[in-house]
Amino acid sequence: MATELSTPLDRAPDQLPPVAMPGDRPATTQGVLDQVFADGAQQALPLGDGFATLWSELAEATRGGKRFRPELFTATYRAWGGVDRDSAAAIGAAIELLHTAFIVHDDVIDQDDVRRGQPNVAGAHAQAARDAGAREPQAGQFGVTAGVLAGDLALATSLKVVATCPAPRTTVARLLDLFHDVLLATAAGELADVWLSVQDQPAPLEEILTMEERKTALYSFALPMQAAAVLAGASTAKVEAVGSVGRALGTAFQLADDLAGVFGDPALTGKSTISDLRAGKRTPLVAHASTTTSWPAIAPFVGSPTLTEAEAQQVRSTLVACGSRRFVEELADDHAARAVHDAVAADLPVAIVETVRAFGKVLVGRAA
Amino acid sequence: MATELSTPLDRAPDQLPPVAMPGDRPATTQGVLDQVFADGAQQALPLGDGFATLWSELAEATRGGKRFRPELFTATYRAWGGVDRDSAAAIGAAIELLHTAFIVHDDVIDQDDVRRGQPNVAGAHAQAARDAGAREPQAGQFGVTAGVLAGDLALATSLKVVATCPAPRTTVARLLDLFHDVLLATAAGELADVWLSVQDQPAPLEEILTMEERKTALYSFALPMQAAAVLAGASTAKVEAVGSVGRALGTAFQLADDLAGVFGDPALTGKSTISDLRAGKRTPLVAHASTTTSWPAIAPFVGSPTLTEAEAQQVRSTLVACGSRRFVEELADDHAARAVHDAVAADLPVAIVETVRAFGKVLVGRAA
Repeated sequence: MATELSTPLDRAPDQLPPVAMPGDRPATTQGVLDQVFADGAQQALPLGDGFATLWSELAEATRGGKRFRPELFTATYRAWGGVDRDSAAAIGAAIELLHTAFIVHDDVIDQDDVRRGQPNVAGAHAQAARDAGAREPQAGQFGVTAGVLAGDLALATSLKVVATCPAPRTTVARLLDLFHDVLLATAAGELADVWLSVQDQPAPLEEILTMEERKTALYSFALPMQAAAVLAGASTAKVEAVGSVGRALGTAFQLADDLAGVFGDPALTGKSTISDLRAGKRTPLVAHASTTTSWPAIAPFVGSPTLTEAEAQQVRSTLVACGSRRFVEELADDHAARAVHDAVAADLPVAIVETVRAFGKVLVGRAA
Repeated sequence: MATELSTPLDRAPDQLPPVAMPGDRPATTQGVLDQVFADGAQQALPLGDGFATLWSELAEATRGGKRFRPELFTATYRAWGGVDRDSAAAIGAAIELLHTAFIVHDDVIDQDDVRRGQPNVAGAHAQAARDAGAREPQAGQFGVTAGVLAGDLALATSLKVVATCPAPRTTVARLLDLFHDVLLATAAGELADVWLSVQDQPAPLEEILTMEERKTALYSFALPMQAAAVLAGASTAKVEAVGSVGRALGTAFQLADDLAGVFGDPALTGKSTISDLRAGKRTPLVAHASTTTSWPAIAPFVGSPTLTEAEAQQVRSTLVACGSRRFVEELADDHAARAVHDAVAADLPVAIVETVRAFGKVLVGRAA
């Protein structure tokens, strides 16, 4: 299970004052999402009960998110002085829908039936098939079908919302290019993630960092920040610069997330601290450990589906003792610091530098 | 394996004279597809060898199609007197890319590793993982990953090509609505298809016809014909009418395809006449047979993975004897006739009526 970053940031409310939109929906990300799912539910009605259920589960999967991506987008857009509230609400919604598409398809790829402790789209559909008397592997196949289709619908809806946002046509074209570029890179990151996980040996750190940047940092941080810059009419050079800042910040967050997946407080992060180890997830923590003399004491446990909590505790102690935890904490801090440095160096608006700094501080606080 | 309609129509060349496009590509469907895949290959280069391979396999999957959907679109657009060659080339390409997305994801859902006798995207990637020493189920998981991602990329590229075609903005918005509506209905059809196939009992004929209309007829026939009408600036009423014609024609073709999947000449259609029976595919042929007294003689063989050619021949004879073959042939003819009738009744341009009639005649010739 991946791409579900846990952030201890308080949920920043969507602070732009709502204005009326067609259909009397307020121009907020939530308003656009509500409209999109209401419209889809209307369309789903004549397409059969099964499809209506699929659509409502997709809405549920989107509702469950923490929304930090649209919030990063909104904060950055405000920092650029953007005033097109309708387009901003649409792009925020499109970013969240893209995230939904990725997590739903990610679950299909990882053959996960559960997310956030609840059956996900695939899990709920497989169960429905079982309830109706279907056997395996047919019930599982129905779950996969639902997961593939739900992700497709989220992806298509995201892109439609971008394409039909009321910004000038040249701006929309730039936004579509941006979403497309990010989609390609995210797919490359996801493909690399699975490729690395099917190898016997941990890949070099550099390769894992590149994979994590593509798979998560780009769409979660660079995309929101770059979309805000594009919508605000920033120059290509500024959009590039803010993308580099977003990649560094996103990588810092991903590293903090990897740490939380082994050393975190589940009560605070909502993340298990054993499932990454059981799954043998290729992280910089594992990559670093594999270069130390402690690796033989860790290797047998990484990817062991039956790993006990006592064994996990032993792995954690060894990861501290061999310096891997400290190494990744410093790597996260370095990336957060680089994000701030690059934002200042590129002469980005002060409010953006402050946003990046605020995200970075939260991070340092966590990793400490 | 599904949504791969075989048509014995000669490949109609894209008869609009090519004109120059940005990048000196001719304004043809093929030109746009070539450009899209060349651009993507450029973007894929820095994203790693694995991703570049995935992209080239996606291009290959698109190249392998028979292109009758864009050809139906082009013929219909010409019949409306459409003159926007650049937009027409883009929409033709978008329709073909949508088809690619559907077949690639359909293969993931059906767990097929082969299409058109060659390893498909998933099959080629699973094999690459095996060649690199991966075991099962990891190699298979890598194949699924590649299939899910390739379908996502085809879908996103299709929608981007629609969104950025040079037609007036209101026309593009209508086209996006149309593609979105069709995507929802196709997903509903695909979901229903798998749902019906996991049931023990064949569903009623009406349910299977609705499923086939949504899963295949809509995107393969109604979409090309309606997109042509929208791009040509036809009224909402005409777009509706042409959609109804397309659904009837598409259902006729799907029925002919179901017949070809049991009674066809593989040398002519390229379709196996045993795999639909082995897979237990829910078709109107099976639905009809299940209502006759011959069903007990057929039921044990439908969905038997080890069905022999001799047993299949026995099933075919029984399907003829119990009237199911004749019933489905007449159903196909009825739908083809209704398509022509509706086209005339809706006062569609004569050239469209002729196109529909030509498709229908081919069909009658096949079913006879």
